[in-house]
Amino acid sequence: MAAIEEEVQLLGAVGSPFVIRVQIALKLKGIEHKYVEEKLGYLSETLLNYNPVYKMVPVLVHNGKPISESRVILEYIDEAWKQNPILPNDPYQRALDRFWSKFIDDKCVAAAWKSVFIPDEKEREKAREELFEALQFLENELKDKFFGGEEISFVDIAASFITLFQDVAEFLLFSGDKFPKLHKWSQEFYNHPVVKEIMPTKEQQHGFFKARAASIAAANKAAASK
Amino acid sequence: MAAIEEEVQLLGAVGSPFVIRVQIALKLKGIEHKYVEEKLGYLSETLLNYNPVYKMVPVLVHNGKPISESRVILEYIDEAWKQNPILPNDPYQRALDRFWSKFIDDKCVAAAWKSVFIPDEKEREKAREELFEALQFLENELKDKFFGGEEISFVDIAASFITLFQDVAEFLLFSGDKFPKLHKWSQEFYNHPVVKEIMPTKEQQHGFFKARAASIAAANKAAASK
Repeated sequence: MAAIEEEVQLLGAVGSPFVIRVQIALKLKGIEHKYVEEKLGYLSETLLNYNPVYKMVPVLVHNGKPISESRVILEYIDEAWKQNPILPNDPYQRALDRFWSKFIDDKCVAAAWKSVFIPDEKEREKAREELFEALQFLENELKDKFFGGEEISFVDIAASFITLFQDVAEFLLFSGDKFPKLHKWSQEFYNHPVVKEIMPTKEQQHGFFKARAASIAAANKAAASK
Repeated sequence: MAAIEEEVQLLGAVGSPFVIRVQIALKLKGIEHKYVEEKLGYLSETLLNYNPVYKMVPVLVHNGKPISESRVILEYIDEAWKQNPILPNDPYQRALDRFWSKFIDDKCVAAAWKSVFIPDEKEREKAREELFEALQFLENELKDKFFGGEEISFVDIAASFITLFQDVAEFLLFSGDKFPKLHKWSQEFYNHPVVKEIMPTKEQQHGFFKARAASIAAANKAAASK
């Protein structure tokens, strides 16, 4: 069978934990693609055209067809390119992977943001408690080197958010004493050959989180003054 | 091949739009199961044991193994029982189905709740606007009899929330003039032979939403007085 010329494009923003998820998956599968940097806080016509609903990166464009939302993109990548699967085969294990990656987005992401970026100190403290409660569930869930066992999987890729967030939080998320399994996982994850190539520098990471926080604050201010 | 005795149990609450999603999927696939009613606002040991993370219905228990979160359960059902698929075959179409069902949960469910159940009138009005904005996206997306074409699919099952919510909202979500395609879809959906058998009575529907609102209000009050 002759190889079909494929066009794969990723609209991203350096340092975005959600873009990084997609980059890890593409790298794991060995999928060549063109990367297009979108400027945070500025909506390009391309982005508005490809993701009119959320107006956010990442967007994967495969032969002209756009897909948004990082977890939806990860599933698409796993179904469109079968090599090096990122979801397990067994339906129950797949359900668990979907459950825990959704849990990371529902329970860790919002709490993490709030724990650093909202002005009210009490609210920040409350968010930090919620984040620790969520991390405890993940700590209990981690049985092997990775969430996926000996290899990184869907949950590990989703959980990359946590290791990236550690770099910008002003408090310790995990250490040898606190969530020791997550701490070890985070190190193993960073050192995974594929992940290592993708991870941004600390400066890039800080840059992204700060720009995103400023953009959210500006949007909130605009909404409040309406 | 001899049939393997399977044990399928569904922990639910009458009138819950998320439980109804699972019931529609089980009925579409013809999966016999035992239904266990959980009392809203009361956490049974069974529920805490099977869903310690969210402590909510629906929970599907298949041969002793629990799965939570309605969209995760729907995917599991579709993978564990292959007959009458609820997700399409094509990876891109599957991605779209996942995107739009997630959109319903992200953009319609919270806005719908707020538009009826939060005390502040201005906030209710704002939520109503957000809900209408989201419904406009769905209206534009609806091309055929159902989101799935001639047959109901993943998005239709997720969107059942909207038709159920119409019964408790104090304002018109859709009509012949307003979101006419969603209006027609809602009628077709209600009249689908499988859906018809599952849908609760208006009284059951009202009962659930009222009890849920009271339970959320009580939780908020408790959190505020902490």
